[in-house]
Amino acid sequence: MQFERKREGAMPIHENARTPISSAGLRRVIFLALAATCITTWSLSLWAKPNDAVPYPTGYRLWTHVKAALIGPQSPAFENSGGIHHIYANEKAMEGYRTGKFPDGSVIVADFLETRENAGVTTEGPRRRIDVMVKDSKRYPATGGWGFEQFKGDSQTDRMVTAENATKCFDCHAKQKDHDSVFSEFRK
Amino acid sequence: MQFERKREGAMPIHENARTPISSAGLRRVIFLALAATCITTWSLSLWAKPNDAVPYPTGYRLWTHVKAALIGPQSPAFENSGGIHHIYANEKAMEGYRTGKFPDGSVIVADFLETRENAGVTTEGPRRRIDVMVKDSKRYPATGGWGFEQFKGDSQTDRMVTAENATKCFDCHAKQKDHDSVFSEFRK
Repeated sequence: MQFERKREGAMPIHENARTPISSAGLRRVIFLALAATCITTWSLSLWAKPNDAVPYPTGYRLWTHVKAALIGPQSPAFENSGGIHHIYANEKAMEGYRTGKFPDGSVIVADFLETRENAGVTTEGPRRRIDVMVKDSKRYPATGGWGFEQFKGDSQTDRMVTAENATKCFDCHAKQKDHDSVFSEFRK
Repeated sequence: MQFERKREGAMPIHENARTPISSAGLRRVIFLALAATCITTWSLSLWAKPNDAVPYPTGYRLWTHVKAALIGPQSPAFENSGGIHHIYANEKAMEGYRTGKFPDGSVIVADFLETRENAGVTTEGPRRRIDVMVKDSKRYPATGGWGFEQFKGDSQTDRMVTAENATKCFDCHAKQKDHDSVFSEFRK
């Protein structure tokens, strides 16, 4: 019968089933498989996002606009940061702008955009990158409690700051001792 | 006695008090005085703020930043509006930017600032004025449901739009038929 033949054909696959496995042994196999999966997932997550990684500031475009500036061709910063940039702050960072001390959870974003000029009017073009500062005194004790990151263009994953760069970010920001390492001030 | 002399000297002022006034008459005098005060106050308030006056958009600096542009010396708009300007929208106006139809209560503010340039970097200077659009289809049926106003510098009371100007505002904005008379679009 066709049914029997199929059953016979399937038998070799179940050959091992003939070897009896104790309940304890089965539990050990399942445990080891789960453990291996967990370790692999954890390692991959570490590789993709280290513990001190600054998260992408989702929704920052709806945060408070702090101020703006335009970097033109005559500035030495033009090559890397030329164009218009806007500073945005979340609610906790706004407390920092008011008091001069930014609480943990403060996030500040500098949004760098290319510009276009037509008939004397300069308008906003594509995004070059965003610079992000996150205040977390436990995570970033070596850099004034601030974590630094840059995301390229519109990407939420293409990170531009290496461990070395993060120190450079802070070396410059640290000059602002009286304003908790923040350069910008809220324009009223 | 000195006291008596003072009293005598004061007497003529109270001469009229000798004429008896009925209770009904007194009430009539008080009523007329109150009515006159109310009419005067109401007239002054009308003169200072007509019924269709666009209110100052208190707190707009904390609203969502829509976009920015810079008007340079080569633009014909430079004399009146030269510098950087930012567009802000309240929550209802943000619904309009998403749907293309701005509900009543939408408020959009264009914040015009002077600029300063130093070593190729253009920064924000004093406020020139703010332009305000308020959607209220019952109040402003003749201008697409929008009320228009400008406030000079940082003033919350120095209004720059006359009835004639408001029509001019709308004549230009009306070109944006497909976007409910709004020129700007939200930059993501």
